[in-house]
Amino acid sequence: MTEINGYTQSDNEKELHILNLPSLEAEAKKIIPTGGFGYISGGSEDEWTLNENTKAFNNVQIVPRVLSDIDDPQTDTSIFGIDLTMPIITSPSAAQGLAHSQAEKDTARGIAKAGTIMSQSTYASTSIADTAEAGNGAPQFFQLYMSKDWTFNESLLNEAKRVGAKAILLTADATVDGYRESDIINNFQFPLPMANLEKFSSGAGKGKGIGEIYAAAAQKISPDDVQRIKDITGLPVVVKGVQSPEDALIAIGAGADGVYVSNHGGRQLNGGPASFDVLADVAKAVNHKVPVIFDSGIRRGSHVFKALASGADIVALARPIIYGLALGGADGVYSVIEHLNNEFKTVMQLAGTKTIDDVKHAKLIKK
Amino acid sequence: MTEINGYTQSDNEKELHILNLPSLEAEAKKIIPTGGFGYISGGSEDEWTLNENTKAFNNVQIVPRVLSDIDDPQTDTSIFGIDLTMPIITSPSAAQGLAHSQAEKDTARGIAKAGTIMSQSTYASTSIADTAEAGNGAPQFFQLYMSKDWTFNESLLNEAKRVGAKAILLTADATVDGYRESDIINNFQFPLPMANLEKFSSGAGKGKGIGEIYAAAAQKISPDDVQRIKDITGLPVVVKGVQSPEDALIAIGAGADGVYVSNHGGRQLNGGPASFDVLADVAKAVNHKVPVIFDSGIRRGSHVFKALASGADIVALARPIIYGLALGGADGVYSVIEHLNNEFKTVMQLAGTKTIDDVKHAKLIKK
Amino acid sequence: MTEINGYTQSDNEKELHILNLPSLEAEAKKIIPTGGFGYISGGSEDEWTLNENTKAFNNVQIVPRVLSDIDDPQTDTSIFGIDLTMPIITSPSAAQGLAHSQAEKDTARGIAKAGTIMSQSTYASTSIADTAEAGNGAPQFFQLYMSKDWTFNESLLNEAKRVGAKAILLTADATVDGYRESDIINNFQFPLPMANLEKFSSGAGKGKGIGEIYAAAAQKISPDDVQRIKDITGLPVVVKGVQSPEDALIAIGAGADGVYVSNHGGRQLNGGPASFDVLADVAKAVNHKVPVIFDSGIRRGSHVFKALASGADIVALARPIIYGLALGGADGVYSVIEHLNNEFKTVMQLAGTKTIDDVKHAKLIKK
Amino acid sequence: MTEINGYTQSDNEKELHILNLPSLEAEAKKIIPTGGFGYISGGSEDEWTLNENTKAFNNVQIVPRVLSDIDDPQTDTSIFGIDLTMPIITSPSAAQGLAHSQAEKDTARGIAKAGTIMSQSTYASTSIADTAEAGNGAPQFFQLYMSKDWTFNESLLNEAKRVGAKAILLTADATVDGYRESDIINNFQFPLPMANLEKFSSGAGKGKGIGEIYAAAAQKISPDDVQRIKDITGLPVVVKGVQSPEDALIAIGAGADGVYVSNHGGRQLNGGPASFDVLADVAKAVNHKVPVIFDSGIRRGSHVFKALASGADIVALARPIIYGLALGGADGVYSVIEHLNNEFKTVMQLAGTKTIDDVKHAKLIKK
Repeated sequence: MTEINGYTQSDNEKELHILNLPSLEAEAKKIIPTGGFGYISGGSEDEWTLNENTKAFNNVQIVPRVLSDIDDPQTDTSIFGIDLTMPIITSPSAAQGLAHSQAEKDTARGIAKAGTIMSQSTYASTSIADTAEAGNGAPQFFQLYMSKDWTFNESLLNEAKRVGAKAILLTADATVDGYRESDIINNFQFPLPMANLEKFSSGAGKGKGIGEIYAAAAQKISPDDVQRIKDITGLPVVVKGVQSPEDALIAIGAGADGVYVSNHGGRQLNGGPASFDVLADVAKAVNHKVPVIFDSGIRRGSHVFKALASGADIVALARPIIYGLALGGADGVYSVIEHLNNEFKTVMQLAGTKTIDDVKHAKLIKK
Repeated sequence: MTEINGYTQSDNEKELHILNLPSLEAEAKKIIPTGGFGYISGGSEDEWTLNENTKAFNNVQIVPRVLSDIDDPQTDTSIFGIDLTMPIITSPSAAQGLAHSQAEKDTARGIAKAGTIMSQSTYASTSIADTAEAGNGAPQFFQLYMSKDWTFNESLLNEAKRVGAKAILLTADATVDGYRESDIINNFQFPLPMANLEKFSSGAGKGKGIGEIYAAAAQKISPDDVQRIKDITGLPVVVKGVQSPEDALIAIGAGADGVYVSNHGGRQLNGGPASFDVLADVAKAVNHKVPVIFDSGIRRGSHVFKALASGADIVALARPIIYGLALGGADGVYSVIEHLNNEFKTVMQLAGTKTIDDVKHAKLIKK
Repeated sequence: MTEINGYTQSDNEKELHILNLPSLEAEAKKIIPTGGFGYISGGSEDEWTLNENTKAFNNVQIVPRVLSDIDDPQTDTSIFGIDLTMPIITSPSAAQGLAHSQAEKDTARGIAKAGTIMSQSTYASTSIADTAEAGNGAPQFFQLYMSKDWTFNESLLNEAKRVGAKAILLTADATVDGYRESDIINNFQFPLPMANLEKFSSGAGKGKGIGEIYAAAAQKISPDDVQRIKDITGLPVVVKGVQSPEDALIAIGAGADGVYVSNHGGRQLNGGPASFDVLADVAKAVNHKVPVIFDSGIRRGSHVFKALASGADIVALARPIIYGLALGGADGVYSVIEHLNNEFKTVMQLAGTKTIDDVKHAKLIKK
Repeated sequence: MTEINGYTQSDNEKELHILNLPSLEAEAKKIIPTGGFGYISGGSEDEWTLNENTKAFNNVQIVPRVLSDIDDPQTDTSIFGIDLTMPIITSPSAAQGLAHSQAEKDTARGIAKAGTIMSQSTYASTSIADTAEAGNGAPQFFQLYMSKDWTFNESLLNEAKRVGAKAILLTADATVDGYRESDIINNFQFPLPMANLEKFSSGAGKGKGIGEIYAAAAQKISPDDVQRIKDITGLPVVVKGVQSPEDALIAIGAGADGVYVSNHGGRQLNGGPASFDVLADVAKAVNHKVPVIFDSGIRRGSHVFKALASGADIVALARPIIYGLALGGADGVYSVIEHLNNEFKTVMQLAGTKTIDDVKHAKLIKK
């Protein structure tokens, strides 16, 4: 364990024997300090939307096809020309130093080993360059919490471009912090600085609540910002936090290269729909013009399947990855994502689907 | 604490650190005597409708709009030409001396500070004039439990008019008392007189159950009573307790200046619908001819949003206000309503709505 | 307490302070021996249908009408030309000696006092004549479990007619006993003889399980039996246990003077619908050609209202009556039915309905 | 008790007093070792589909018909020309030595006594010939887990034919093992050899997990395999694990003589529909061209009724049979199936159905 500013970070580095992803939360709770665990695990208000996110997958069922004459399902796919071993990537997730002393660096290592994409957060504990270096050439996305200060935005975007980020995820659903009661209960203040912010102000992020951090962020995000970021970076820009067909079309009209369906893991607007419940309608509106990334609630291989069969091209997840990071460092991260992909492969075989394209064309039924 | 007729009243005067409104009930239960707490918190029969009132908000979801280019949402609105800082007012609520020694006077002070409307109850612990004076010029409504005795009704209405009430709320859903089991279990008798009744008979209200109090009330309320009250007061008259499009149209046809959708907080007819579940249909029938006020079940900022997006112009609440009164007096009342409005502002921002008018035009979806 | 054949019967004779009917079950359980209580309270198999019976009332809601200009609701009604103080009667219920030493005689006394109808069961603990005598001229129905032995049937029917029964309820949903697990668990044998059976064989009913009792009953009941019973008695015949529009029309075509919608209180076929869930469709098919009686699940005044508004002319109930009998004898029975009617009157007033006819025309909405 | 390889097998041989089938699980858990019990009782992943299997029967209700003029319901039926005393057979179920020292031999004895069909599993503890011999001429089906090795397949199929199997059940929904967490938790390895595998390799099956066993099975099963098995055996071939109308038609088109609707008792694909929820659509597609067998979730006589009324010709079950085997050997198996058929007969009588054909034409309604 590493003690820093009175906060205890895990130093674990080991592969994990994983029963299932939901069970990781209780294990991680034992080793992540209360405030950090509350920040990571919590949602907004009474967490109705958070809970609904995972329950919603039970609203549709996979019809297993038999006599399909297939074996050895293949999970490889691609996005923006990047070849991936699986259609599963990480959602950007802030302040991973709360879970492990190596923070985002270990996440980058584990995800690189798995052959898929890590998404860096603006509010990461380690810097864009350090995390990229740990990834050792593996593909990464960079997520932008747009600041009111475009000098800051440009600096981050340029650094991301410089170290090879493959796309920018523009978070649009967090123009103010969701009302997260666990942070209030724990009187949670970030014990560690946020590396990308620190460049502009020493110790930035440290000793602040998420509300104060967001206060510096831009509340006004407009379609024009999409093009502005494209102009700065020359990279594909994905609008993250889309939950309606209308916004998907606005984003695409504004030049977005991808639509990221998400409700921020139930951490922002509570009382909104489960992310999965809006996926099919959004994907239908997108109509394959750009890729659809999906997160919020994925915990099982069957969830991955259902999301792809509902129109997602790629799914993402964060909390289980962070728990894996706390429990096992880079190898823990690798264990988590491999376990999920293995569950997914079993589902593919039992559903009679050989390829990701087969999965996307599989029929779901409503209960 | 103040002891009066063997009943212990809170004397608290302090701002409250509020996590959320639902959590106030357990706190208030610790300081309000059992009989009073049962009267305040309870509903009728097995409380199915009471519980459904709040659960019903989960039947629809807010679709967060992103890329809306808005910040700093504005909650100011108006009703009957009265400017308000927020679309949230108090429901009339009887006998607030059960919660605090300053009773309605502190509620008036806290609500005045918040810049919105307090609704006085016929069965208040303090008199119309005293409560108005405590409000110090802030707008107030007066709620009438219509008596069989029109001398009494006229006296109250005239006093309300004299002290500046802005509208009369005619309660139409309580022509007999709902069957409230907690009052039976606690053998609850009002320990304190009701000031407006006492003018007519010394000690009135004290030592009686709610059934006896209602017995003096008129059971027959007809559309003609609306105009009669308008004639007496010259004030806008709002019919409170409407739950069907048919009654909304009858009320408007009879001259009502507002329709108040409510099931009396689940305290009257049990086995009826959640108030929220009938709001949209009633509002559609009203079709903006008069303002729609809504109560019964509001506990969250997202509930305020959903009610407005379903056709309400103003929402009201009572129990959380009374709990705030018990826990903190005038400042407690202020804390409660400010907390709720802050939650609402967060929801507005995350939903991409800048003004109350935006909220009213927001799209909800059904689960 | 009276001890008979090792079975302890209540001798209580007192009015009851009733909070609500559901709460009576736990009280009655304290004084009725385990085997008897299991027989009375239990349903068949896993009691899904039993539980659904009462829960189903929450599937529709009463829309309270305000500004109705009514007071003092009137519950008087009639069936087969018999004037009743309320639209609530007793369902036939066997072996009431399990609950009280006065058995059906006290039920007859309590119901007579309330001004409504008691239904005698073939398998009663006291004889047709004795129960009729206790009723002292109050109207009674006689329920027939049709035997394979028509000498027996005719004897019972003739005795019922002789003592003034107003109608015959032909139970058609119990051609074999439901699989009631509580009777198996308790190894329940009737400790007391059944008076109507004993005339044919000394001690009949005593020491037998319900399965053996039913074994003597006719399994084959055909439409022709309706006319046969009419010919014997010259009385109105009501077919009890109807759950489908088809059977309602068959019964009416066969000469039935009434249709009794019931699933035997969840004691016969488990896995069938809640009785309330089929009421509206059956009543629509009956289309006022004959009266519709309804039972199975009624515990609240709002249930009475909902059943009448769904097409029933009269509702019936048994278990709460038996619990009232155990707890208070004739006065207990009276207390139960009066309490239910008082709850019903409150619902009528709050719903804006003055008469039973108003209730029948009230609008219900679906959740 | 018999101790073998450190595993304790029941030696019970007795008839059981059965309250209901669901209650057997807790009884069996007391005598079957943890690993074996987990293997038998468990489902895949979080067991959503497993639990849904039985709950789904509550989605439809049986409408009891009265005045049907029937008694003494008859449960005899037939399939493939085999006369059966009831429409209930056993599902194939592996490794019954986990439950009893006599393993499949006792199951065969009990089922033979009941007059219906036992289905042997490829992965049985006792050999095809031994189990057939124990059945003493009673009809049996043989279930094939198709191996990649057709020498093995042919050997098994030929032995099955030689000893008189009446049909081959080709399991198509288990081309890879479902993710069964109880086996992981218990680190379960088969303690006993599987007789049919042992012929090819000494001790085969023993000391392996189900994953390893399946690894030898064919993952690619195609429609052509149906005809290949028919050619080898000359027996009717039933495709087991069908859950979609599409696969039912493919199977029939490939020559299948029966369609077996099943989700493998919730042990394979989790997140798929309850087997009962797809039955009606599959049966409609089959349209009586071939018989439909149904399993997964049957625990009650009402379930048997609902399955037949939804289009099944025969229902099957496994877990309760295995629990009966553990608790009472051959007589226990007999007790279980007789109890279920007795519950079914009660349901038939109460529903007004005299024959299996009547049941198939009974109307169900949706809640």
